[in-house]
Amino acid sequence: MPPVVQKYGGSSLSDTTRIKAVAKRIAARVEAGEELIVVVSAMGKTTDELIGLAREITPVTEGREYAMLLATGEMVSTALLAMALRDLGHPAIALTGAQAGVYTDNTYNRARITEIDATRIRHELARDHIVIIAGFQGQSPDADFTTLGRGGSDTSAVALAAALGAAQAEIYTDVDGVFTTDPRIDPRARKLHDIAYEEMLELAAQGASVMHPRAIELGLLHEIPILVASSFNGDVEGTLIRKEVVMEPANRVRGVALDSDVAAVTVRAVPDRPGIAAQIFGALADAGVPVDTIVQNASVEKLTDMTFTVAHDDWRKALAITEPVAAKLGSGQVIIDHDLAKVSIVGTGMQSGVGYAATMFRALATASINIQEITTSEIRITALVSAKEAENAVRVLHEAFQLDEPAEVQT
Amino acid sequence: MPPVVQKYGGSSLSDTTRIKAVAKRIAARVEAGEELIVVVSAMGKTTDELIGLAREITPVTEGREYAMLLATGEMVSTALLAMALRDLGHPAIALTGAQAGVYTDNTYNRARITEIDATRIRHELARDHIVIIAGFQGQSPDADFTTLGRGGSDTSAVALAAALGAAQAEIYTDVDGVFTTDPRIDPRARKLHDIAYEEMLELAAQGASVMHPRAIELGLLHEIPILVASSFNGDVEGTLIRKEVVMEPANRVRGVALDSDVAAVTVRAVPDRPGIAAQIFGALADAGVPVDTIVQNASVEKLTDMTFTVAHDDWRKALAITEPVAAKLGSGQVIIDHDLAKVSIVGTGMQSGVGYAATMFRALATASINIQEITTSEIRITALVSAKEAENAVRVLHEAFQLDEPAEVQT
Repeated sequence: MPPVVQKYGGSSLSDTTRIKAVAKRIAARVEAGEELIVVVSAMGKTTDELIGLAREITPVTEGREYAMLLATGEMVSTALLAMALRDLGHPAIALTGAQAGVYTDNTYNRARITEIDATRIRHELARDHIVIIAGFQGQSPDADFTTLGRGGSDTSAVALAAALGAAQAEIYTDVDGVFTTDPRIDPRARKLHDIAYEEMLELAAQGASVMHPRAIELGLLHEIPILVASSFNGDVEGTLIRKEVVMEPANRVRGVALDSDVAAVTVRAVPDRPGIAAQIFGALADAGVPVDTIVQNASVEKLTDMTFTVAHDDWRKALAITEPVAAKLGSGQVIIDHDLAKVSIVGTGMQSGVGYAATMFRALATASINIQEITTSEIRITALVSAKEAENAVRVLHEAFQLDEPAEVQT
Repeated sequence: MPPVVQKYGGSSLSDTTRIKAVAKRIAARVEAGEELIVVVSAMGKTTDELIGLAREITPVTEGREYAMLLATGEMVSTALLAMALRDLGHPAIALTGAQAGVYTDNTYNRARITEIDATRIRHELARDHIVIIAGFQGQSPDADFTTLGRGGSDTSAVALAAALGAAQAEIYTDVDGVFTTDPRIDPRARKLHDIAYEEMLELAAQGASVMHPRAIELGLLHEIPILVASSFNGDVEGTLIRKEVVMEPANRVRGVALDSDVAAVTVRAVPDRPGIAAQIFGALADAGVPVDTIVQNASVEKLTDMTFTVAHDDWRKALAITEPVAAKLGSGQVIIDHDLAKVSIVGTGMQSGVGYAATMFRALATASINIQEITTSEIRITALVSAKEAENAVRVLHEAFQLDEPAEVQT
């Protein structure tokens, strides 16, 4: 039987009582005959506390020592969980990322995993040890600590599952699974039984915070099924992210995502000639401002309007960079709208279906919600709306696509 | 010029303000042209907090994971100090014990250093990096974390000084140096300019807590001068522990030590025949109870009294082990006196001199302090007295040997 990789997030390990509860869950699975590798995040607020210490020392919160500092958080929870399992009579061993053979490049705080050498893990499993591994961290070619950046522990878990040929990666968190939308916005939100990697990727990229896109990409690449479930509620079965949802009725919208962290920059009356976009977005890239969507209207009299969105925190920087470039290009004024949000509907069924956009726009229009911009991918339609109308837009779309109805055929 | 190894204790690194102050001290030395390797303890109460977390999980506070847990404390302070130095414009690098090449046996929580491979340290020094090393920790033959037990960071510092051929090891703490006795007991206590390894060893073994005997032994073995000084008070020059204090007037008592952590066990009317001591102390050794001094009175009618001392915390255990052995040997009752203390005078001059014991006993007698037991070494005389008279005994002896007078010739 292939081993199972589990991952417990910080909220599942917020204090020693929770750590002991997690140990009991793991023990029950091992007693049932399973072979477990467990990846852990730092306890509760530990990472924030370590970041706070660093900020008291220096404004430069990056680099080699910053990675070493943050890596201690996961070492503490890893050691404590192994001790808790041993206290229950189960031999367990705690490994750092380096000890577990997680090798990365030397981008200290946003490292990419380059290789996993599972020799030590296999050796410990052969000795009937439950293997507890510090997530979020690895070892650089110079044997220094690296951390994997946002979503790091999820990425560790999926990468280890791939390296070990695990049956699946189980991501335990403080929510019951992946929902059709955020239940705090729409109480009729329904937990999905399963969802395709691509759908989950779009939902995550468009604001669903349950998992980081990077770990989902890795699952897609290595075809590792990822179960997202609650560590607090043992009776709820969670959501399985997997290759395809074969038995799902086709042509279904799977979820509605909301990203409230959006500002739009519109450059008015841009001359419509080659190279203009390159000048604006080149300047933004040089300044390290990530641009999300870009929309350019059809040209009228050789002049066009160009709108792009950035993260809300970046709007002042984006304005400061864009204005001189726009002036040099001879274009009109630069307008900022920083009270925007993106509402997206996502579903693989959409790529072959028709009428999704029409249904979406009609539903929003009926609710008198104005759409400022539209972007689409193969499996997603996104509308830019005003921030104050965003949550209502989510509820309107959840209703319009009947997402509260349990239409799934469970496989 | 040989490099200098410094060590900063937890009280010198109690918060980020103190860490930044230590960084400034280090920067000043480096700007003056010195090559520095800095060993650090965990910040303030960090180790106690980690021990507290472990105790919430399990009563078993030892083993592989316990060492890994505690090792994180020094990693945090090491990383923060390196970040603080870099913030001051000084390139610094933080190394774990393992990265610094500190190899140990696999006694996880009381590991002995077996070898130091200084390749990485030398490489970083050659790149003009200030090298900051996590004290108290090393790496086992299986590449696991080990910790060095009590006095561990001092031991790390002296061992690294030996491996690097350093000019000296500088131990920075919250006291100004080594005093003739504890200034909290006798305000006339005087800071010593220097002291021999053997004297410091005896003072430490007899209760002076400024340094752990193990680090001093290592200094003696490798002839590394050890400076004990304050990290808070830059103007005070500290105390140098070194091979011999050549210019010191002979026949001087150097200090008075107090150890209040003593209980005495007396086995009455023991048959005076070979093998009896072996049975009593064999049983204690098997139970892991360390025995300090042993005194056996001259035999009267083939029966003798045997008294030994143990740490105060061990007296119940010692009694439980000794009573059945004594009964089996046909000896009389076992008596415990658990309100005792050891007061010692120490000085290398004593080994060739006369009259020290007489002066000591006369002084105590004049003060009506009863001596319950006497033990001696080449450079030490220890009197066992009642706990309530102990601090007065220290003051009486400090006065009798004129330790408040600055009679040292400074070299």
